[in-house]
Amino acid sequence: MIAKKMVKLVEGSSVIRAMFEEGKKMAAEFGAENVYDFSLGNPSVEPPAGVKNAMIRTLEEENPNYLHGYMNNAGYEDVRAAIAAHINKEQGTNFNENNIIMTVGAAGGLNVMLKTLLDPEDEVVVFAPFFGEYSNYVANYDGKLVVVPPNTETFMPDMEAFASLITPKTKVVIMNTPNNPTGVVYSEDTLKELAKVMEEKEKEFNTSIYLLSDEPYRELVYGDITVPYATKYYQNTIVGYSYSKSLSLPGERIGYLVIPSDVDDYEDVFGAASVATRILGFVNAPSLQQRAIMACLEEKVDVSIYDRNRRLLVDSLKGMGFECANPDGAFYLFLKTPVDDKEFTKKAKEYHLLVVPGQTFGCAGYVRISYCVDYDMIVRSLPAFEKMAQEYGLKR
Amino acid sequence: MIAKKMVKLVEGSSVIRAMFEEGKKMAAEFGAENVYDFSLGNPSVEPPAGVKNAMIRTLEEENPNYLHGYMNNAGYEDVRAAIAAHINKEQGTNFNENNIIMTVGAAGGLNVMLKTLLDPEDEVVVFAPFFGEYSNYVANYDGKLVVVPPNTETFMPDMEAFASLITPKTKVVIMNTPNNPTGVVYSEDTLKELAKVMEEKEKEFNTSIYLLSDEPYRELVYGDITVPYATKYYQNTIVGYSYSKSLSLPGERIGYLVIPSDVDDYEDVFGAASVATRILGFVNAPSLQQRAIMACLEEKVDVSIYDRNRRLLVDSLKGMGFECANPDGAFYLFLKTPVDDKEFTKKAKEYHLLVVPGQTFGCAGYVRISYCVDYDMIVRSLPAFEKMAQEYGLKR
Repeated sequence: MIAKKMVKLVEGSSVIRAMFEEGKKMAAEFGAENVYDFSLGNPSVEPPAGVKNAMIRTLEEENPNYLHGYMNNAGYEDVRAAIAAHINKEQGTNFNENNIIMTVGAAGGLNVMLKTLLDPEDEVVVFAPFFGEYSNYVANYDGKLVVVPPNTETFMPDMEAFASLITPKTKVVIMNTPNNPTGVVYSEDTLKELAKVMEEKEKEFNTSIYLLSDEPYRELVYGDITVPYATKYYQNTIVGYSYSKSLSLPGERIGYLVIPSDVDDYEDVFGAASVATRILGFVNAPSLQQRAIMACLEEKVDVSIYDRNRRLLVDSLKGMGFECANPDGAFYLFLKTPVDDKEFTKKAKEYHLLVVPGQTFGCAGYVRISYCVDYDMIVRSLPAFEKMAQEYGLKR
Repeated sequence: MIAKKMVKLVEGSSVIRAMFEEGKKMAAEFGAENVYDFSLGNPSVEPPAGVKNAMIRTLEEENPNYLHGYMNNAGYEDVRAAIAAHINKEQGTNFNENNIIMTVGAAGGLNVMLKTLLDPEDEVVVFAPFFGEYSNYVANYDGKLVVVPPNTETFMPDMEAFASLITPKTKVVIMNTPNNPTGVVYSEDTLKELAKVMEEKEKEFNTSIYLLSDEPYRELVYGDITVPYATKYYQNTIVGYSYSKSLSLPGERIGYLVIPSDVDDYEDVFGAASVATRILGFVNAPSLQQRAIMACLEEKVDVSIYDRNRRLLVDSLKGMGFECANPDGAFYLFLKTPVDDKEFTKKAKEYHLLVVPGQTFGCAGYVRISYCVDYDMIVRSLPAFEKMAQEYGLKR
């Protein structure tokens, strides 16, 4: 009786559920401390203390009908103004409250923008490997997903392939940096090249192509890496941001969209995005979280904890002969598998290692390892990885 | 450049925006205390004190990564179990956590169910007058809205018209009691008749027709009125609930769906609704609010405050010769207009009265008056209503 479009998705979700149940069974059989679950993207670092204080203070001080009431669908104006000012300070941009729409996380923001922009059959370009949910989001609005094959040398977009896949029907390009699942951060040169390709195609086809920059991992970068701000390189850029990772609040569903005033048809796009927020049933981003965020704009999680995990894993795995993409950001390693990635994932399970096959992200021959886990679990897991390396004759 | 489907919606939203701006202008010109805004459905009664305490206690006591982290897309299991137990206690039902999905308000829940159930061109029946957003929600999934004309005698559904409008393509019937905009509460007899019509049509067409009972106003009833629980009268009932009004938390976006185990294709429907929650970009209902709600299941706003507003308005307006639907629930009066409702709305504005024309809800000849406002504003507004009554010669 359910919608035809949902049938396959329910099957897919049963598979995930089965995996999850299997993991629980393994933990029951071998002890939770002997199962090494690297499959989830649920932040392990605590939210900064300032976040809890801000929430409690907001609850103590604000008028409850104002704090928990309806506001403009785009969000509280003062919150949006404060976020705009914060971005301006950090990025030298020139945004104000009329460039910000508060969203139910980044997932909510992406859906709002795709609802706003896509007519049926419009094309949305993504770069493999990519977060699998993009294909569901695009399908929600009857768009057509166009996948640029992976460039496994650098995991930056393959510009030639990209250019060749843009057509007069291309409406949106989704970019995700720092990247899930590779951890790669797109360089400034990459952004410039991307912009050049898109500008040329806009001219060639006389169209507007919106770059949707999905940036939930923006603050999670290591060493001296910085993440260039995409609006400065390409005019028709819209940014989707979330506090899920930067403040470890994924369950709270709080984020925002940046819609710069100089994107094509700005007024219609901003107006339609506000309407889409309402009619998709979000109505508005959760109100307490909006107001608490305003008091936490300078906070972020202690990324040194993720960095310590990252270094231990990268050094250890490389020492065993594994190779991976440049893990400059997010909390993922994208590990090259000596055999088919689904086979590798299956074999890993025998060693109680849970990882996600690259095929899930449109990139076979790799697995994703999430290191948003306890450091001690990583330490305990290393002998298992070691045995995998031996099994596949990787040991140098 | 925006989606064609969005163009009209943006125009519509500009009209609302213009109205809102006009209201602000009137307040600036005549003083806020001399403008009587009865147009909004934003709760005016404070959330019960227990709500704030529950949120703060939850923040103080729970592990922050658990409290703010991802959980099952359907919501925390213990929260869902507690809500199921609460409904069972109140209604004598037999639900458990596998019948509850936490949602981003009732609007989120309705969208999740329509995504779950609707194939393109499937028909969704609503009873005029109805909350205008239903038409947008149905259009989101390419469904076809079928409107049962209003029965202005009782504002209960016209059963004959209803039966004649059900076809083999009818997939969902949306019911809303206590009703927005009429304030009418459907009686037990009405539910029995509704069920009878739907059961007969299911048999006739060999289909499953789901009754989606939208109940954000369930707790807002006055006098000795009770709201029958729809799952007890019709097997294929799914309930959409929200704490927006019962706890005055509309900005927080927290509610739930009840999907009883005996609806047709229960497993697929529940599974697909969980997936729809994820892929529509809600991902999950806000996590802190979920856990705080669990501690507030016995709380509700002080409805005597709304009741006092209601009695003042009803008695005063009836005394002036106005007529309205039976205002047993919600916080709306649906007032019969002696002239066209848009003309009446325009005239009302001359007296600084802001109301919403019935045509917005598919029912001309009436206006909606929201009494979720300050009592004193109602008192101050009465001379303006009095002048309207005189203007139209209503005074008896």
